[in-house]
This record gives sequence, C-alpha cells and structure tokens, in this order.
Amino acid sequence: MTTNETGNTNYLLTPGPLTTSLSIKQAMLRDWGSRDADFIALTARIRERLLAVANASDSHVCVPVQGSGTFAVEAALGTVVPWDGKVLVLINGAYGQRMARILGIVGREVVTIENAENEVSDTAALDAMLARDTAISHVAAVHCETTSGILNPIQEIADIVARHGRSLLIDSMSAFGAIDVDASKVRFDVLMASSNKCFEGVPGMGFALIRRSVLEGCEGNAHSLSLDLYDQWQALEKNGQWRFTPPTHVLAAFDRALSEHADEGGVAGRHARYAGNCGILVDGMRAMGFETLLPDDVQAPIIITFHTPSDPKFDFQVFYDSLSDRGFVIYPGKLTVADSFRMGCIGRLGEDQMHAALDAVRATLSEMGVTQCGRARAA
Amino acid sequence: MTTNETGNTNYLLTPGPLTTSLSIKQAMLRDWGSRDADFIALTARIRERLLAVANASDSHVCVPVQGSGTFAVEAALGTVVPWDGKVLVLINGAYGQRMARILGIVGREVVTIENAENEVSDTAALDAMLARDTAISHVAAVHCETTSGILNPIQEIADIVARHGRSLLIDSMSAFGAIDVDASKVRFDVLMASSNKCFEGVPGMGFALIRRSVLEGCEGNAHSLSLDLYDQWQALEKNGQWRFTPPTHVLAAFDRALSEHADEGGVAGRHARYAGNCGILVDGMRAMGFETLLPDDVQAPIIITFHTPSDPKFDFQVFYDSLSDRGFVIYPGKLTVADSFRMGCIGRLGEDQMHAALDAVRATLSEMGVTQCGRARAA
Repeated sequence: MTTNETGNTNYLLTPGPLTTSLSIKQAMLRDWGSRDADFIALTARIRERLLAVANASDSHVCVPVQGSGTFAVEAALGTVVPWDGKVLVLINGAYGQRMARILGIVGREVVTIENAENEVSDTAALDAMLARDTAISHVAAVHCETTSGILNPIQEIADIVARHGRSLLIDSMSAFGAIDVDASKVRFDVLMASSNKCFEGVPGMGFALIRRSVLEGCEGNAHSLSLDLYDQWQALEKNGQWRFTPPTHVLAAFDRALSEHADEGGVAGRHARYAGNCGILVDGMRAMGFETLLPDDVQAPIIITFHTPSDPKFDFQVFYDSLSDRGFVIYPGKLTVADSFRMGCIGRLGEDQMHAALDAVRATLSEMGVTQCGRARAA
Repeated sequence: MTTNETGNTNYLLTPGPLTTSLSIKQAMLRDWGSRDADFIALTARIRERLLAVANASDSHVCVPVQGSGTFAVEAALGTVVPWDGKVLVLINGAYGQRMARILGIVGREVVTIENAENEVSDTAALDAMLARDTAISHVAAVHCETTSGILNPIQEIADIVARHGRSLLIDSMSAFGAIDVDASKVRFDVLMASSNKCFEGVPGMGFALIRRSVLEGCEGNAHSLSLDLYDQWQALEKNGQWRFTPPTHVLAAFDRALSEHADEGGVAGRHARYAGNCGILVDGMRAMGFETLLPDDVQAPIIITFHTPSDPKFDFQVFYDSLSDRGFVIYPGKLTVADSFRMGCIGRLGEDQMHAALDAVRATLSEMGVTQCGRARAA
C-alpha cells in the first residue's frame, strides 16, 4: 500500500492517538541517554514551552509524567488533593466519570454534579453546591469532554470556583494546544493534558501545569511513587533528570511537535485549522442528512458525534470497515446518551483530508445502499 | 555529525535507555489507531511472545502497562499483594530499595534483608526468615541488580520461596531477554521487566508476567486505577484493547525488537552477544589497570562497575565528557558502596563497538595523563 505525506496508509479521524506529521515521527530516529545533557535540555525546553502556551510561566510549573493522559490525571489528583480534601467533580461524560472513579480508588472524598453527555456542566448547580458545602476543597472539571466533543464553559467555572476560594483542576486533555487557556484569565491550580492530542505528538506521556505555591505544599500527599508529581518535580528541579526512565523517543517527538505547533501560530493557528476541519466535516455530513448530537455553540472542533442514521441498511461495523478500507479510521466507541458514532478532526489533517473523508463517506453510503441519514425518531 | 548504522552519532554504554537498531526505530514511522484491529493484533502478539520467552504460556498471562519499568514494578506489587499481605524484599542495590519504598507508600507491610551492593542476596538468611516469620506472604527479589551489575541467585531464591510455600515476585528488569528464566524451573508468580533493556526496544512501557491463578484473585487490590494490572488484564481479555491510550509507537518498536530478538536466537543468542561484549570490556579495562567491583562469577553481562582510578589526574566529569565526544556515552550515576563508575554492554552493540570503546578510553586516559588505573587503597 502506498503511504501519504504523513507516512501512513490511512488518516486517523479519532480523538488520539492521531495522525502525526512524518517529521514528528522522524524525530524518533535516534536514541537518547536519558541522563545526558542533550536530553536534560530537551526536557527543560518542553516544560518551558508548555507553560508558555498557557501564559503560566510565572505562576505554575510543568511536571511531565510517563504514561497516558489518565496517568497524568491520576497523578495530579493524587498529588494535589490532600487525604482530608473533598473534591467536587463536574461530570458530563466518561472523563468526568473517570476522575470520580480515580478519587474513589485513591481514597479521597468525592461528590459530583452530573449532566447528560449532550449538556454542558451546570454552573448554577456548581455555584449553589460550593455555597452550601464548605467542606469541598477542590473542583475537578473537564474542558472538552472527548466523549461527545462538548466544550464546557471553563471560564465561567473558573470564575465561580475562584469566587468561592476553592482550588480548580482542569482536565484539558483534548483541548489544550488548540483551545485557548490563559492562566491570567482562567484561574486554575492544575491543568492536565498529554502529548498526543492537540499538540500532535505521539502517545506515551502526560503532564500537569501546577501552581508553584500549591505544589510546594504537596510533599507526601501522593498514593503512589510512580505518580507522585511532587517527587517528580523535586527531581527535575534538582538536576533536570526524570526520576525513572522517560520515554525518550516520545519526548523527542513531542519537542518537534511543539516546534511545529509554534510554526503554525500556536494555539490560534492550531484552532483555526481544527475549526476549519470541523466546519467542513459538519457541513458535509449535514448535507448528506446526518445530524450532530450537539448544537454548534457547544461543539468543540475536536471530535464530532453524529446520530446513527435511521436507515435500516446502516450497519456501523460495515461503515467503519469500509471507511477504513478507503483510508479513514474513525472512532469505534459509543456513547450512552444516544445511538451515535464519532469522527475526530484533529491531528495532521486539513481541508483536503476532510473533503476526501466526506467523499469516502458518500462512497460508503452508496455501496451500503443507505439513503436515510437522519436519526431515528420515536414514532 | 555523521551517524552510525544505528542512526546515532554515538553509542550508549548505559543500562537503558540504550542503543537500538535503526530498523527498530523505523518501526515508529507510522501512526496506529489504538482501538483498530491491526493494533489489537500487535498487542496480542507482543503479549504472547513475552510469555513464550519465559516458557510461561500455559501458566501465566502477560499484562503490559504504560510507563517505565518502575511503573510495572509498582503496578505488580500493588495489584498482587493484598492489603493484609507482608512482603520480604531482598535488597542489594537501588532497585531492591525502591521496591521496599513502593510497598511503604502503597501501605503494605514490608521487611527486608539487606546486603551490600557487591554481595549477592543472602539465601541462608532468606530461608531462616521465612521459617521464623510465617506472616510473610510474598518475597520480592531483584534478578540482576542494575546498581552494580550483580546477578542474584534467582534459582536458589525461587527454590527456597517455593519450599516455604510463599509467593515470589522477580524484578527481572535488566535480565529478562538475555538471561534465561524458565517458569517451569524458576517458580515465580510475577516477573516484571520492560521494553527497553535486553529486548532492545525503546522506553515507554513495562510488563508483568503473572500466574493466571494468582491474578484471578486480585480484583480490587490495587491502590491505583492506572496501575491496576487486574483491571488492565480484564480489558485486554475482553476486547484486546488497552484501557487507556497505549504508547502505540513504542509498542510498534517493541514488536519489531521482539522479532530481532528471535532472529538472533532468542535468550541464548542475546546472552552470547552480551557475554562477549562484557568479556571484551572487562579484559580490555583490566589490561589498562582498572579493577571491577564484582568478581567474575557474580558479574551479569549487563553493566560493569569499575573502581575509580587512584590517579589524582582522573576526574570523572572530564572522563565522561571526553568519552562522549568520542562517541560513547557511559552511565553518569554512582554507587554508595565504592567510588566507582559504570559502563553498560547491552543494546545494539557488538565486538567492534566494544573494541572502539576501549580505544576511546585509552585515548581519553592518555589525554588526561592518567596512568594509575587501579583503585585507591587505604594506606
């Protein structure tokens, strides 16, 4: 099979791991001594750049951690929330659910406000609960819920939490890098993200931006050695080295990815391309009759959820396989709130790829004999 | 700078991350959908191959985990040792110390038998303590202690633990793949290792081989969600997918590394090359007057500790930098037991590279004016 300009035989229309540029992957073609000066400089550069993206260089520190985004979320929660803390988690999808589950496992008290996957987090309920329950020390919110692709009102959430004097942790996994978060405007103590979402690196590491004054008080909090971000930070401050073997090649790719992110114009440039991708995809799918789960005003340009067509000839597995044969791998997971499927629009993709994806959808529907793409409605 | 056949401008004489072949790194030049059929097959293949290396396919399961080797060690300890368990850790270096530290953090009772870094673990003391303390449920041992390069008597340890009816966990991080461990002879319940030591993959994942009948009883043990190997195993059994984003490119490299390991003749072939490397390095360094910390009968062919020369003109940082300039990066860490330095002999290195490394040492010593390479002795 022939490969495209990204070195792949297909494009990933998924929320990550995603399609990365060939040059980012080529940055992995050398080996690094993890305690050597070159690699120490590379780690420092990545940490500084991530802080700068959030305009947080003066207030926060960046602590990277091996593993997936969930490792970074668990590490941040376990490090920052003391054993007698109480966390309010705002849930409207799988990633909010996961934070609540983690807090239960690591033995911290947790309460939740739950909304459906197609509703933004309820800020009035947040305000009321913080007023009522003074034992709540921390609020954990998801920026863009990858489950549905919904964008939560993070500025409003941050303002409410700040007004009540509580500490805010933001899971910005699938938003940071493409959706602006300015620490001087959105007041957060912790922001978690990873290498392989909107920064378009390869998977294998996550990180947290943590307010320095908060982290300084977190010694001994963590439930884990590997996931102790205080200890990780102390080691990095001491000699610039990771405590335990870092994924050196993943870091080298991430360093390159951050250069390409800057070259594209940073968050604004990345957002513009993703918003363009999202618009082409949504418009094209709607022209075929598909309906989106979310109204446009809360749709993040990351991943789009479409209702499953009412046409009885539509079979998801056939649709998935046929698109895959045509060079587009979509996301195979499902939502709980609606019979639906999802297509991502992030990664090394632009207008040409989105139009080609739409062509592949049209060809697939034609082959399947599907003509009714609107969602099924109760009779 | 020109690159060598591994794609690097230098060779890493470290215990990992290490020098990998160019073909292993080139396996990272494509992106994988982590929930796609191709990647599910790749994960399954890696898990099966690792079990086969230990002749454990019928008795154990392989559970991979994101992160470094320490993540795999913590995950295995936290998953397999119940909250009312008591672990005896055999310590003769940093990695035994680390297991004891992890157990303390995750709230399991721990006792230790400590030997110096240049002594093998004391099996008579192990036997006596297991006879005396019937509350000890598990024994944790390090196969090759990377701290010094010492090979612990793992067969004897396993026999004693089995005779006392306790459960054995082996940290085989820097041994597995190059030093034979046959589950039908060395009775272990858990063996932990990683992608980037003797298998010569890139760093970013670890794994544990766990006796199936033991793991079946471990639901709900773990102190962590990310590091819960029971939950990880259940997900893999269910649909072949990782629970959380795996380091896809690292896995692709590891798959390739396992093919190259098999092509070299598996553990026997890999051991033969490393033993050859070790012999050349030790003989050559002794010819210059250097002295090894360990006697030959307990020296694993992984990493060799040399006493610091007595010559007052010897300065470690100058030595390190000069070797680095000549294309050989050695390990910058130090031992507690003796003033010393270490050179690894694993990774994509053979006779030619070891002879070239010796040439670099000779040139460096000449440049430094060092003539007395024997260790300092008390007057």
